Amino acid sequence: MTVDYLPLPGTPLEEIDTPALVVDLDAAENNIKTLQRWCDENDVAARPHVKTHKSPYWALKQVEAGAIGVCAAKVGEAEAMVAGGVQDVLVANQIVGPVKIPRLVALAHRARIGVAVDHPENVKDLSRAASKEGVEIGVLVDVNVKIDRTGVEPGEPTVELVRKVADSPGLRFDGIMGYEGHVSPKDQAETNAVELWIGKLEAAIIAVEEAGYPVRVVSGAGTSTYRASGSHERVTEVQCGTYVFMDGAYGPESPEFTNALTVIAQVMSRPVPHRAVLDIGLKSMSVDSGLPQVMSRPGAAIEKLAEEHGILSLHGQARNLDVGDRVSLLPMHGDTTINLHSHYFCVRKGILEDVVPITARGRFR
Amino acid sequence: MTVDYLPLPGTPLEEIDTPALVVDLDAAENNIKTLQRWCDENDVAARPHVKTHKSPYWALKQVEAGAIGVCAAKVGEAEAMVAGGVQDVLVANQIVGPVKIPRLVALAHRARIGVAVDHPENVKDLSRAASKEGVEIGVLVDVNVKIDRTGVEPGEPTVELVRKVADSPGLRFDGIMGYEGHVSPKDQAETNAVELWIGKLEAAIIAVEEAGYPVRVVSGAGTSTYRASGSHERVTEVQCGTYVFMDGAYGPESPEFTNALTVIAQVMSRPVPHRAVLDIGLKSMSVDSGLPQVMSRPGAAIEKLAEEHGILSLHGQARNLDVGDRVSLLPMHGDTTINLHSHYFCVRKGILEDVVPITARGRFR
Repeated sequence: MTVDYLPLPGTPLEEIDTPALVVDLDAAENNIKTLQRWCDENDVAARPHVKTHKSPYWALKQVEAGAIGVCAAKVGEAEAMVAGGVQDVLVANQIVGPVKIPRLVALAHRARIGVAVDHPENVKDLSRAASKEGVEIGVLVDVNVKIDRTGVEPGEPTVELVRKVADSPGLRFDGIMGYEGHVSPKDQAETNAVELWIGKLEAAIIAVEEAGYPVRVVSGAGTSTYRASGSHERVTEVQCGTYVFMDGAYGPESPEFTNALTVIAQVMSRPVPHRAVLDIGLKSMSVDSGLPQVMSRPGAAIEKLAEEHGILSLHGQARNLDVGDRVSLLPMHGDTTINLHSHYFCVRKGILEDVVPITARGRFR
Repeated sequence: MTVDYLPLPGTPLEEIDTPALVVDLDAAENNIKTLQRWCDENDVAARPHVKTHKSPYWALKQVEAGAIGVCAAKVGEAEAMVAGGVQDVLVANQIVGPVKIPRLVALAHRARIGVAVDHPENVKDLSRAASKEGVEIGVLVDVNVKIDRTGVEPGEPTVELVRKVADSPGLRFDGIMGYEGHVSPKDQAETNAVELWIGKLEAAIIAVEEAGYPVRVVSGAGTSTYRASGSHERVTEVQCGTYVFMDGAYGPESPEFTNALTVIAQVMSRPVPHRAVLDIGLKSMSVDSGLPQVMSRPGAAIEKLAEEHGILSLHGQARNLDVGDRVSLLPMHGDTTINLHSHYFCVRKGILEDVVPITARGRFR
C-alpha cells in the first residue's frame, strides 16, 4: 500500500511540494464563465470536453455555469463523470467491443448518455446491448468534416447510417457530430478550414433531413473554432475542452481565455553557473506539443527533459537560482500533462483551496 | 468512486480489453536472468533501476534472481518498493526540500536506504534529518561523468564533498556514482564515451582514496553500457533498468535482451480503405522516443497519435483489418509508456497470469 502526501487547504503555494499540478482557480473559473457567456449570447449550448481535466470537480463547475452536459472520450471518463454527479454525458467517440459497450449502456440507468457512431456493425452492437439492458442511448452520427480521422462521408453514406440508427431499438437518433480538430490553434477561427467544415456539415444536415430524419443536435467545435462554428444557425452545441485551463500552445489566437494551469518544480542540482536541474521530467510534463515555458524567470529556459530531470539553461539574473529555489512552468499541452498527475492543487490568490483527485486519469478503457 | 474493470487470471490474451499494457512473462523473466548471469560471471552486483517498471512485483523478481537491491529515481518510488517488500533501495538522485527529505530518512527504519548527493547544503539537510530520526543513510557522491546533468566534477570538488559527507552525523560515505546516461542506446558499449566515463570515474576514485576515504561502492551504467562499465575492476554495481522489458528504441545494440512489453489496441473506426483508427493515443502510449511499431501486421504502420486515437495507415493485406480487430504495438520508450498505465497484464503463452498494479506510477514527489 502506498500513499500520497498532500498539503492541507490553506497551505501557501510556496510550501506545496514539487512537482505539482497547480490551477489558478480565479483564472479557470473566469475561463468557464467567458465561454458560457459567449454561448448564451449566441444561442448555442456548451458541452465541454472533459478530456482536458478528467475530473468531475471541473465538469460540475462547467455545468453550474450553464453547460448542458459534457463530452467524454472514453467509457472510463464517462463513468468517472457520472460517479461524480454529472447527469448528461456524450461519449464523442466510437465505443466498440464486448466489454466497453455493456459498460456504456449500464451508465444510461443513471444519466443521459449519448455516443458517436460511424459503422453499421457498431450500431447493431449498441442497439442489442441497449435493448437487452432496457435503456435508450442517444446517438450522433459522426461525419468526417475533413479531419480524416473517424466519421462517415457527408451525403448518402451519412443518410444510410442515420437510417440504420433510426431503425434500431434502444437507440435514439439525435443528430450529427463533426469535429474540426484539423483546424489547429494556430489557425484563426475564420479560416477556410472552418468554412469547409461548415459546408460539409450543412451538406450532411440537408441530405439527412431530405431523407426525413430531423437533425435536432449538431455537435462539434473546439476552443480555437467555437466562435466561427458556434455562431452557425444549425450548430446546437460546442465541445470546447482546452479553454478551461488553456495550453501554452494556444494563446494569442484565443485572447479571451487565460492560462490557468502550471506545473511547479524545484531546483535539485546546480552543477555549473549556466545550468540548473529541476525535479521535473517526461513523467510529470508532456512534450508532445513542445517544451514547457518558464514563467516569470527572465534568462531561464527549459533545454531538455529527461524522465525525471528538467535541464534549465540560465542566463543573466537567472544564474542566481539556487538548489531548493522554485520555478513555475507552463505546459504546451495541458491535456496530456494532467494525464501524468494524480491531483490538482487548486490555488486562489496564492493559497491552496482544494486538492482534487484526477479520477478519470489512466481510465482509458 | 471509480473502478477498474480487470480480466481474471486465465483469460486469453485475445479477450483482454484494449488498450492494455501487456508483458510476456517468459521474455521479461529471461531478460532478468540474462543480466544476472552476466553480473555473476563478471563479479559485479546488479542494482536494477525501478523507474522502468515502477512496481515491486518486478523488483522482487529481480532481487530473487540475485540483485542486491534496486535504484529509484524518487522518494515516492522508494516508498512503493519498501512497501512492496524490497529491503535495499538507492535513490540514485538528489533529494531536496523539507517534505521529501523526512520521507526519505523515515524509510531507513524499514530498509537499507541510500541516496546520491552533489551539493554541500543538501548534505547538511540530509545529515540533520537522519540524526534527528536516529537512522543512518548511505551516501554516494554523484560525479559528473560527462552526462552534464547532475554531479560534481572529478578531482578536488568531489574530494571536498566526500569529506563533508564523511564528517556528517547520520550519513555513511559508501562511494561514488557516475551515470553515463549520455551514452545512447545507439552507441556500442565499447565507445569512447564509455572510456571517457571510466576515465573520469577512475580520476574521482583515485583522488578520493588518496585523500584517505576508501571507495567501497562505485555505481552506474545502464542497459546499453553495463558490459563495458560493469567489467571495469572498480565498478561494483550496475543500475540497468530498461533491460527487463526493452524498448523499441533499443534492440540491435542489445541482442541479449528481448522485447517483453507491448500495448494492445483495437480498431474502433475503419473510415476508408487505407486508414484504420485504433483506440490508443498519446494518453496510453508515449512518443518521446518516436511512434510505436506495429507487431506482426505487414502493411500496417502508425502514422500519427492523437490524444485517444491512433491513425493506422494500411497497405496490402493489412487492408483486411476491420472494426474490432486487435493490433499489438511496441513502444519506443517503455519507461514513459508504463507511466501512463494503471496495471500490467502479465501473460504467459497467451494466457493472463497476473494483473499487477503500477504502484509507483504518478508518485513523483
